[in-house]
Amino acid sequence: MEQQMENRQVIFKGFIDRAPRETDMELKVGSIGGGLKAPPGSGAFLVKNLCLSCDPYMRGRMRDSRASYIPPFVPGQPIEGSGVSKVIDSDDPDFKPGDLVSGLTGWEEYSLVRKTDQLPNQLRKIEQHDVPLSYHLGLLVFGGPIQSHCTTSFVKFHGKFCETNRIQLNDAANFHGITNSLVYSQHKHLHGSTSLFMVPKNIFCAASGAVGQLVGQLAKLHGCYVVGSAGSRQKVDLLKSQLGFDDAFVYKEEPDLDAALKRYFPQGIDIYFDNVGGDMLDAALLNMCVGGRIAVCGMVSQHSQTDPQGIHNLFNLISKRIRMQGFLQSDYLHLFPLFFNQVLKYYKQGKITYVEDVAQGLEHAPAAFVGLFSGRNVGKQVIHVANP
Amino acid sequence: MEQQMENRQVIFKGFIDRAPRETDMELKVGSIGGGLKAPPGSGAFLVKNLCLSCDPYMRGRMRDSRASYIPPFVPGQPIEGSGVSKVIDSDDPDFKPGDLVSGLTGWEEYSLVRKTDQLPNQLRKIEQHDVPLSYHLGLLVFGGPIQSHCTTSFVKFHGKFCETNRIQLNDAANFHGITNSLVYSQHKHLHGSTSLFMVPKNIFCAASGAVGQLVGQLAKLHGCYVVGSAGSRQKVDLLKSQLGFDDAFVYKEEPDLDAALKRYFPQGIDIYFDNVGGDMLDAALLNMCVGGRIAVCGMVSQHSQTDPQGIHNLFNLISKRIRMQGFLQSDYLHLFPLFFNQVLKYYKQGKITYVEDVAQGLEHAPAAFVGLFSGRNVGKQVIHVANP
Repeated sequence: MEQQMENRQVIFKGFIDRAPRETDMELKVGSIGGGLKAPPGSGAFLVKNLCLSCDPYMRGRMRDSRASYIPPFVPGQPIEGSGVSKVIDSDDPDFKPGDLVSGLTGWEEYSLVRKTDQLPNQLRKIEQHDVPLSYHLGLLVFGGPIQSHCTTSFVKFHGKFCETNRIQLNDAANFHGITNSLVYSQHKHLHGSTSLFMVPKNIFCAASGAVGQLVGQLAKLHGCYVVGSAGSRQKVDLLKSQLGFDDAFVYKEEPDLDAALKRYFPQGIDIYFDNVGGDMLDAALLNMCVGGRIAVCGMVSQHSQTDPQGIHNLFNLISKRIRMQGFLQSDYLHLFPLFFNQVLKYYKQGKITYVEDVAQGLEHAPAAFVGLFSGRNVGKQVIHVANP
Repeated sequence: MEQQMENRQVIFKGFIDRAPRETDMELKVGSIGGGLKAPPGSGAFLVKNLCLSCDPYMRGRMRDSRASYIPPFVPGQPIEGSGVSKVIDSDDPDFKPGDLVSGLTGWEEYSLVRKTDQLPNQLRKIEQHDVPLSYHLGLLVFGGPIQSHCTTSFVKFHGKFCETNRIQLNDAANFHGITNSLVYSQHKHLHGSTSLFMVPKNIFCAASGAVGQLVGQLAKLHGCYVVGSAGSRQKVDLLKSQLGFDDAFVYKEEPDLDAALKRYFPQGIDIYFDNVGGDMLDAALLNMCVGGRIAVCGMVSQHSQTDPQGIHNLFNLISKRIRMQGFLQSDYLHLFPLFFNQVLKYYKQGKITYVEDVAQGLEHAPAAFVGLFSGRNVGKQVIHVANP
């Protein structure tokens, strides 16, 4: 007779078209058969989940839409997301009991994982034992450095961008990569042939979450002047005192975001890393420099809205020849090993600080997830499920 | 005693914050002194204006805003715009009486013109005598081929674009410039290493005006599948029968623009040349392909609005990794000679058709200009003032 084990799970109850609520999920005691063994011939392996990641993009999977870049959750089944897990039993020759892995898993105590259900490079064995396991959910994996990489990649590919826009890059700076010396000459065709040299240093980002904190720190490491916005005074203090941002402000305390940005960027914004959308994007458009760039990576303020807020200031794209481009981390998975090593090095050298908000226990997972959308988390939100 | 001559003028009455009306301008009989002579020592030359250009961007100069990329008109002074003129008298050694020139001039019978008030390459002597003079206001100058060039330039710089997006261009095609063979391989990192080759052929543009008709024809010459939108059945017939568009539709007859675009582009839009903005931009965002590009060059539907309409579907920038970029022709003036020759050649070879809407007489200039914003013009709107 097959041995049944209890398996506590966070079940997705059904599709929604509004901001997520705790009641959209349900803690259930399910069961797992086979005596915690991976079924022979399945090619799968059974894991014990140790920590789970809460990410804003998961809201999109609660909508009944096939139009998205990622399929929706299945009602009645556990929520699916990134996690760090320990292999208990394996029918996959690449994974052995005791291995620690990060990849796509379920919001439950035990999951059966198949390599073939994962994106390339998403499922990885954890080899570093001098970094907290949960860091593999943010600092060192999926959405963390890769999304941040989009900005720096955006800066790095600046040369290409500039050529299109008739703004030419200093080639020497280009070949040295992203450094303090990254300068460009903006040929001012309108007013003759004078050249204006400037450092593309003024970076603005919404900095409260998992991605923003890394974007800002990487930009600082590349010599930029970085200002972040956040939802509370506590977070602003964190950005300035621990994460090294040049400045930061509480957007909820600003009656006029346009005026706020003019105060922090009297000469305009060179790069806006937009992971918020909405009013902040509209205000940033008013404050961009000529030739500025907007990396669009999140629009978290719009995740819950079926009729998203209108953006009114797009005319600035023309008058300022702005380039605005959308990024998805899944397009950059092949670059992951490079950035994993880079960010790990920065972290070990103390050049990068990483802030987490850890909810203890699977039973607190729904509240932790819902909190993302009201900005309750300070730093990357994770759920601690069990110790190895 | 100085000899005074009558000089009929279209005067700009004062700043507005709404759609232009004929009453915002006034026909006045002014005078010009000096016996139709350029003042000695002025470095200027006196011209008789032959034809004048009506362009949507001029609406922006009726607003009292220094924030724009071009200074506002001066209340009480004639409207300023592109024109073709004949030199009557000159204190500039580069220009002789009898010379025909195109450049910035006044909406009046006679203007005193200074080289130094013009943008680089904007003031040019007309050397071609086998092309109608007014074609130097649209087909062969300022806003015509140069704005259209932005699209093709956008296609041409595709290689750079693709590299940023991890989509690599077929190098051979790249070096051959814009040809039918322009193909790209989209490395589908998400689903392994298979390559998908496709021709970036599906182009959509609002095609009724001076720029759209050229964009579409240039795209056709480069092997694209081109669909245009226009404001009337008459214009749609023109696009299909005379300008060679693959298809066209009357946007005013479409209750659902999203559905209309899905009908014409079942596989999505590769490039949207946006000179309209508003609802059309929102519908296009829903129908772009992954890796698609939006060249933003006009937003004519938004010119008259102080509180422009919100764009709601920008989330597609992320899910489809769209690049959206603003263009101003003034950044490309240095490329003008190249494109002048290219477009002239196409025209003489019968590969490009050019449609004008000519208003006869300075007194009809205000109505012609106002008509731009209700789509009354069929083709490029010009005003015939006098014969040489």
